[in-house]
Amino acid sequence: MLEELKKAVYEANMQLPHYGLVTFTWGNVSGIDRGRGLFVIKPSGVEYDKMTPEDMVVMDLNGNQVEGKYRPSSDTATHIEIYKAFSEVGGIVHTHSSYATSWAQSGRGIPCYGTTHADYMYGEIPCLRCLNEDEIEEAYEKNTGRLIVNEFKRLCMDPVAMPTVLCKNHGPFAWGKDAHEAVHNAVVLEEVAKMAFRAELINSRIQPAPQALQDKHYTRKHGANAYYGQDTE
Amino acid sequence: MLEELKKAVYEANMQLPHYGLVTFTWGNVSGIDRGRGLFVIKPSGVEYDKMTPEDMVVMDLNGNQVEGKYRPSSDTATHIEIYKAFSEVGGIVHTHSSYATSWAQSGRGIPCYGTTHADYMYGEIPCLRCLNEDEIEEAYEKNTGRLIVNEFKRLCMDPVAMPTVLCKNHGPFAWGKDAHEAVHNAVVLEEVAKMAFRAELINSRIQPAPQALQDKHYTRKHGANAYYGQDTE
Amino acid sequence: MLEELKKAVYEANMQLPHYGLVTFTWGNVSGIDRGRGLFVIKPSGVEYDKMTPEDMVVMDLNGNQVEGKYRPSSDTATHIEIYKAFSEVGGIVHTHSSYATSWAQSGRGIPCYGTTHADYMYGEIPCLRCLNEDEIEEAYEKNTGRLIVNEFKRLCMDPVAMPTVLCKNHGPFAWGKDAHEAVHNAVVLEEVAKMAFRAELINSRIQPAPQALQDKHYTRKHGANAYYGQDTE
Amino acid sequence: MLEELKKAVYEANMQLPHYGLVTFTWGNVSGIDRGRGLFVIKPSGVEYDKMTPEDMVVMDLNGNQVEGKYRPSSDTATHIEIYKAFSEVGGIVHTHSSYATSWAQSGRGIPCYGTTHADYMYGEIPCLRCLNEDEIEEAYEKNTGRLIVNEFKRLCMDPVAMPTVLCKNHGPFAWGKDAHEAVHNAVVLEEVAKMAFRAELINSRIQPAPQALQDKHYTRKHGANAYYGQDTE
Repeated sequence: MLEELKKAVYEANMQLPHYGLVTFTWGNVSGIDRGRGLFVIKPSGVEYDKMTPEDMVVMDLNGNQVEGKYRPSSDTATHIEIYKAFSEVGGIVHTHSSYATSWAQSGRGIPCYGTTHADYMYGEIPCLRCLNEDEIEEAYEKNTGRLIVNEFKRLCMDPVAMPTVLCKNHGPFAWGKDAHEAVHNAVVLEEVAKMAFRAELINSRIQPAPQALQDKHYTRKHGANAYYGQDTE
Repeated sequence: MLEELKKAVYEANMQLPHYGLVTFTWGNVSGIDRGRGLFVIKPSGVEYDKMTPEDMVVMDLNGNQVEGKYRPSSDTATHIEIYKAFSEVGGIVHTHSSYATSWAQSGRGIPCYGTTHADYMYGEIPCLRCLNEDEIEEAYEKNTGRLIVNEFKRLCMDPVAMPTVLCKNHGPFAWGKDAHEAVHNAVVLEEVAKMAFRAELINSRIQPAPQALQDKHYTRKHGANAYYGQDTE
Repeated sequence: MLEELKKAVYEANMQLPHYGLVTFTWGNVSGIDRGRGLFVIKPSGVEYDKMTPEDMVVMDLNGNQVEGKYRPSSDTATHIEIYKAFSEVGGIVHTHSSYATSWAQSGRGIPCYGTTHADYMYGEIPCLRCLNEDEIEEAYEKNTGRLIVNEFKRLCMDPVAMPTVLCKNHGPFAWGKDAHEAVHNAVVLEEVAKMAFRAELINSRIQPAPQALQDKHYTRKHGANAYYGQDTE
Repeated sequence: MLEELKKAVYEANMQLPHYGLVTFTWGNVSGIDRGRGLFVIKPSGVEYDKMTPEDMVVMDLNGNQVEGKYRPSSDTATHIEIYKAFSEVGGIVHTHSSYATSWAQSGRGIPCYGTTHADYMYGEIPCLRCLNEDEIEEAYEKNTGRLIVNEFKRLCMDPVAMPTVLCKNHGPFAWGKDAHEAVHNAVVLEEVAKMAFRAELINSRIQPAPQALQDKHYTRKHGANAYYGQDTE
């Protein structure tokens, strides 16, 4: 069942060690089949070099395991909340990638300092507050997802224009139209986090890039008037 | 004698260069057979790419060499003190891994800034004082081990919940239920040390993660109510 | 047409991932045939591991596509302005390499702190201002090239003695006598940017290298009295 | 002639890219045959992946080329001064390795913050002043060597106990009993430079390691009472 999606999600998971985004098993990718309302996610705590496409777990959006011999990722409930609220999202990834997690631990969002950032993400990458004690005890992973969704609504952020978020003292989530694009955005986030870290150390009075430049680079790659890449892409 | 343990300790030692934790011969791993009261440790100053399982040295807990053509690691006496005091420990590793050693050189413990840390280590990773001149001259390596043991007792720290320690101006030790887990914890320590270093530079007013979040992540992976990973793990 | 140049430009492009200067498709190299007034440039948004020499695009200096099934790099208009103004330049490269881009994001030029820098670049590597809103909207890429050219004229900088530049909030451009040398200079820039970043953190009162040392190292490798390397080089 | 030494010097040169100490051709290693008064050095500006043992250049201590089709390294005159003054030195290396060069650019010596440093180098690694304009114009490379030698004499430093030095605004030199050990010490220097850089950022009030600890670690590996490693080493 969902063999193609399982393969795609498996391959997206395997991109995490390839791009240096994970240590051990610290990351998970999922992808959804919107027509059937089912998504495929990495099993919990299985090592990347032993994982196969068949090990992927099939879940529904109520949190029921539909197929798979392993337990799903412990962050599954977070993925569910994001899929339920953001209909444009087809794939989600969570990592502890080193620079993005450092920003999350510091509790600061990542300002847009340049075009590398603006090419993919529109504006400052938000860093959400920690869950409070009640939210943690009641349903930690589910409430993590709810916080992401609620904060995006409160801040009027479009999850397509801002496909990444930092959870304070925890780490990043990223998403995209499918699992592959979600991982792509997680790689961009890590690179952007690295360069923003260094840029602030080089110039303590640094300011975000001018809005006109941010607008230009985002619209050069996204939307009706995009002209980066090939038409067939 | 102890052929399986020798192989396991050899393989754990070879993980050190694999994970980038050592330069040249700067590291050593041991593993103990509690039933026989013997442990196996890396020989001193032998290069990783020339080492074989047969080169491992068998020692007893009184410091007598039971088998092996090479001298044991110069840090053997430190391992002995830890094995004698911490009965839950089945493997020990010492490295000069770059970020953890930088913290040790700075003389500061590593605060718990996030869930990557809390998933493995409960609370701040302690940085112990230097040995004084008498302790160094009398029995340097043995007294290093005694200091670790005494400080853990004084601070009421559980070596299972805190499987890593920094020795000031020197470097880290880590341990676990066996040699493999000890190296695993040393890898985590290095990653945690790296992210804490960066997080402090990103936000000079950074605070440790809320206690409730630390508790949640530690208990999610450890103890009776753990639900990370698979039952068979 | 221009098969040798296409191969050289293809190979220079493939050096970018080899030297760790690009993530995904974030970079482009071109090379010019001054006799014919044509240059060869990387196609836009094509992944490095799928690219072949035949995918390179041939352009004239008026921006007309002379050959190639793909669209040229979105930065093509910038390359054109540089080729038109700097007759000594035979190859150009643009990247988002991590340290150089961090300097560009910080809005600061890179002072000459040592001989690694002085061996290749004479004086401080300039960081140009951002384009203003009108310049961005009118013709972003073309005006980026014009700004580079105009600033070099205004500052009386020789593009041979200063083969690299930072565009504020964006990233670096580098050039050379051909595509290969342009990439070589981009690698040097990244290394110089990395060491200057660290040197400032080590000593906040750092000063540029003495002028006599800068002169010595530059003239040791460049000009009539150079004596570095072999005569046949 | 000197075929074995040529091979050893060639192999030591090839260790530089292996350990990540050089970019392009930015480094050179030599080794001396004290009996014959001849030394072997890397040719100038030849790329590592094209170099063979036969390309090594044989020189005498008066700077005469005795054998070899290529010009010797442009830093040859520096090597000669060190060989002439430090009779215990059998091999010398110069690199622009990234962290050590950053310290050299900052103009600061590297304090001994821990045992990784103390295991190999006794005390602070000195950073020498820049040559003045006359010294640069008269004989740059020779005067670089003379400055190293004179400063070691003035500071009463033993080149065996301190096998590395930083030249301000330039980069490091390292040496040892042969070319292999010289490169070994250059690798240690780079690692020590990296950890000292980070340790200072972690704790701005950091102090050097206590003298007793420095003494212990140095004498544990060096001199009559050393007990690190195997007897046969």
